[in-house]
Amino acid sequence: MKYSSTLLNNAVEVLSELPSIGKKSALRLVLHLLKNDNDLAYRISDNLTKLKKEIKQCEKCFNYSDHKLCEICKDTSRIADTVCVVESIRDVMAIEETNQFRGLYHVLGGVISPIEGIGPDQLYIDELIDRVEKEKVRELIMAVSPTIDGETTIFYLSRRLESTGVKLSIIARGVSFGGELEYADELTLGRSIHTRIPYTAESKL
Amino acid sequence: MKYSSTLLNNAVEVLSELPSIGKKSALRLVLHLLKNDNDLAYRISDNLTKLKKEIKQCEKCFNYSDHKLCEICKDTSRIADTVCVVESIRDVMAIEETNQFRGLYHVLGGVISPIEGIGPDQLYIDELIDRVEKEKVRELIMAVSPTIDGETTIFYLSRRLESTGVKLSIIARGVSFGGELEYADELTLGRSIHTRIPYTAESKL
Repeated sequence: MKYSSTLLNNAVEVLSELPSIGKKSALRLVLHLLKNDNDLAYRISDNLTKLKKEIKQCEKCFNYSDHKLCEICKDTSRIADTVCVVESIRDVMAIEETNQFRGLYHVLGGVISPIEGIGPDQLYIDELIDRVEKEKVRELIMAVSPTIDGETTIFYLSRRLESTGVKLSIIARGVSFGGELEYADELTLGRSIHTRIPYTAESKL
Repeated sequence: MKYSSTLLNNAVEVLSELPSIGKKSALRLVLHLLKNDNDLAYRISDNLTKLKKEIKQCEKCFNYSDHKLCEICKDTSRIADTVCVVESIRDVMAIEETNQFRGLYHVLGGVISPIEGIGPDQLYIDELIDRVEKEKVRELIMAVSPTIDGETTIFYLSRRLESTGVKLSIIARGVSFGGELEYADELTLGRSIHTRIPYTAESKL
């Protein structure tokens, strides 16, 4: 055993199983929890146990949720006929942070990736088709990563959705606001010229 | 609420109370715990609760311990008459890592610091004096940080221990092995010339 206490040792071991937390960081965290005369260790324990036991997936959009339907799907003030298709729950969070989207989401749970052996069956694609057919979805916004796997997924979805008549759109790709042109990668810069849009008052930052 | 789930939100909040873990890192950790079909969240909860409830301080050296006496103090193969005086439990760990010391420890719990309002009464100094008097300690090795507060503490201890006749020594300070002289700070370099030692076969790395 490395430390004078098995309890300490065990706590360090389990914390260092977390991503990006090594033994030294774990030890620092444990010593912090021990040093402070507060209940943080108990609160962490309680919240993690409760989280793991009680969290659900939203039946509609597959976001994490406390109930059958998540807070976003339940929110009647949101535009229900516009659905943003994302890979993961983190993307929902990222888009929500922008405050620029008032529609609903659909979390695929990943992208089609032949290399990693992820096929359409492992994603919530059937559920998306079902949703489009049953819920009068007017527009699907594809907000999937602009990678080969992402493009493949969008192409696959477009074929599957052809018969539904839903409007498909894709989030704009191009040079970042605030970025300098000379540092943009060639592909992005080249494509951004190709897919240029008319200048209007709205184009301004 | 920031996320679609209160459970998720609460877990992120408590984890981000840990030092050097911000909201984004906490979210990443929580998503990792949710994503993996394992019991890591439960094991973390169990171990932290157990740690906080059951951990003790060694009655002799004030290191963390599972029992009344820590594993180091209980180890009869260690040299009981040589005690290394350190500020914190982390220093014990650092010295144990070196495998160069086979004596016992005494954790002061800090150093005397007038600026931070820490006086001798808040440290385990009386307990150290007591230990020296009762346990036939032959040598005390001061392994306290070479800072002003550290030096003050060593000076204070030397005065308090004068009457006991215990041998006091201090860990060597000088340029680091593997470091380049030109990058050593002036004070360290200057003092290392002042406190130079005769060259022997043992001086080699």
